[in-house]
Amino acid sequence: MAVYTEVSDAELEAFLAEYDIGEADSFKGIAEGVENSNYLLVTSIGQFIVTLYEKRVDPRELPFFLGLMDHLAARGINCPQPIHGRDGQALRQLAGKPAAITSFLHGLWPRRILPSHCGPVGEALAGLHLAGRDFPLRRPNALSVGGWRPLFEASRHSIDDPALAHELEDELVFFEAGWPDGLPSGVIHADLFNDNVFFLHDRLSGLIDFYFACNDAFAYDVAICLNAWCFEPDMSFNATKARALLQGYERARPLEPEERRQLPLLARGAALRFLLTRLYDWVHTPEGALVKRKDPREYLDRLRFHRGTASIADYGL
Amino acid sequence: MAVYTEVSDAELEAFLAEYDIGEADSFKGIAEGVENSNYLLVTSIGQFIVTLYEKRVDPRELPFFLGLMDHLAARGINCPQPIHGRDGQALRQLAGKPAAITSFLHGLWPRRILPSHCGPVGEALAGLHLAGRDFPLRRPNALSVGGWRPLFEASRHSIDDPALAHELEDELVFFEAGWPDGLPSGVIHADLFNDNVFFLHDRLSGLIDFYFACNDAFAYDVAICLNAWCFEPDMSFNATKARALLQGYERARPLEPEERRQLPLLARGAALRFLLTRLYDWVHTPEGALVKRKDPREYLDRLRFHRGTASIADYGL
Repeated sequence: MAVYTEVSDAELEAFLAEYDIGEADSFKGIAEGVENSNYLLVTSIGQFIVTLYEKRVDPRELPFFLGLMDHLAARGINCPQPIHGRDGQALRQLAGKPAAITSFLHGLWPRRILPSHCGPVGEALAGLHLAGRDFPLRRPNALSVGGWRPLFEASRHSIDDPALAHELEDELVFFEAGWPDGLPSGVIHADLFNDNVFFLHDRLSGLIDFYFACNDAFAYDVAICLNAWCFEPDMSFNATKARALLQGYERARPLEPEERRQLPLLARGAALRFLLTRLYDWVHTPEGALVKRKDPREYLDRLRFHRGTASIADYGL
Repeated sequence: MAVYTEVSDAELEAFLAEYDIGEADSFKGIAEGVENSNYLLVTSIGQFIVTLYEKRVDPRELPFFLGLMDHLAARGINCPQPIHGRDGQALRQLAGKPAAITSFLHGLWPRRILPSHCGPVGEALAGLHLAGRDFPLRRPNALSVGGWRPLFEASRHSIDDPALAHELEDELVFFEAGWPDGLPSGVIHADLFNDNVFFLHDRLSGLIDFYFACNDAFAYDVAICLNAWCFEPDMSFNATKARALLQGYERARPLEPEERRQLPLLARGAALRFLLTRLYDWVHTPEGALVKRKDPREYLDRLRFHRGTASIADYGL
């Protein structure tokens, strides 16, 4: 949940005057998005989302994110579509922060993941990978293997259990010695968790939150989804969900043999990535912050599961 | 900001099946209301607010609040109107909490109060008082003078300055010795701050948040509004705003001579009431709570202002 920046009446009015979407009939902070302030805006012509980019987003990267949403929407992907002002710009300032208006997507994110969600998620992910192939801008993945050690070093003092610190150190050394490269790559979402996927009457209706999108291996995005969608609340792995997700993905984009071979390793790396960012946030989020901290240990269980798999057959394919 | 209770897909579906308003197209937690969880619900037929009543609301009082909104809406007051299910009920359970759906009000609450807001607020307050006269249910004001000492006793240990503790004690003794009674009474809003009043294109478009409504003196509600609407951020009193508010009120319901005479005292009491509840919340809200604590000292400044007034002339009338 997140509304960090209050917007005054005059600021909102001046901001909306740059657009052709009518005046504000309603403007409510919404409890979605941990990184930014999001408002639901209702005007005479419809509903929109106004996002103010807070300090964790680098303003220099916003043209990549907004351009990507423009690009994907133009190719039929149901994602928030940036609204351009009369000057053609989608990005401007509101209340002293970079801000943009995007279209409002109908749908609800599934609070409880069912196997029937996973096929459509896989298929939508592949559709996203295909639609992004000719997107001209590039953004390296700052949270790939090269970014993991700094997160670990900044957080290891908080790990009470020496065996656990040792285990994570071993994982880092293992991945630093050889992270798959040369796999088919392009724009990936990199954060396609269930709160970023909307369903409407049992059909997938949209994908949101492209603020981790970057250039990386497509199969790594699949590996993130295996972590995000295929573990039960008790951390047991649900191979039925994984099979549905992978089969859904392959309906739109079949995995190449090398991607299939590397999938267990990529899934293990993805688990380490979310473990380390959660650990970092756990250690560095002040007690009183208006952000709910997420338990990193869920990803330790996932990591250990993936370390024990032998091939893509363990993921239901 | 407040979303305390997560609602699962199945719970929401079962809940909405009791109503004739269509299925959920969107369901987003909104950052409004400090006491309850509020969701914006979009269905094929329109927009609604779903409220889950959290522990600070006594479920036995909900029939009063919902009945009052029904009553006022039927008399033309623009307030959230409870939506009744097919069984005729407006109140049921969602995710283990009492919950209700109300209509969605268009408009924005003014972040910066202008003199032009104050006349309409006064007039709407009087309209509310008149519309509530034949409401049959009753709810005593738990936060009137009899409720103040317990708040003070539970918080006084946190007051570092002995002179300030003494000043508040003196105020309590003063009001306990003689609080105005016999004034014209009925249903009052009791919390009509600027975030509870919507404006749309410079016209007042609605009043929300009736969860402090109760039976008490009408003039006390006016006194609360004088505190809520007529002080600048630097705590100076703006007599232009107060005059506009009182004149607006009298356009719909002229104050009786005794109400005018008691207004300075009621305003001073209202300042003490908000000072004490804020002090209590300041002391008793845990550091990590997802609620922004409000500074009680703003009401000390207001209290001292009102103690120095002689008559309603000091409020611009």
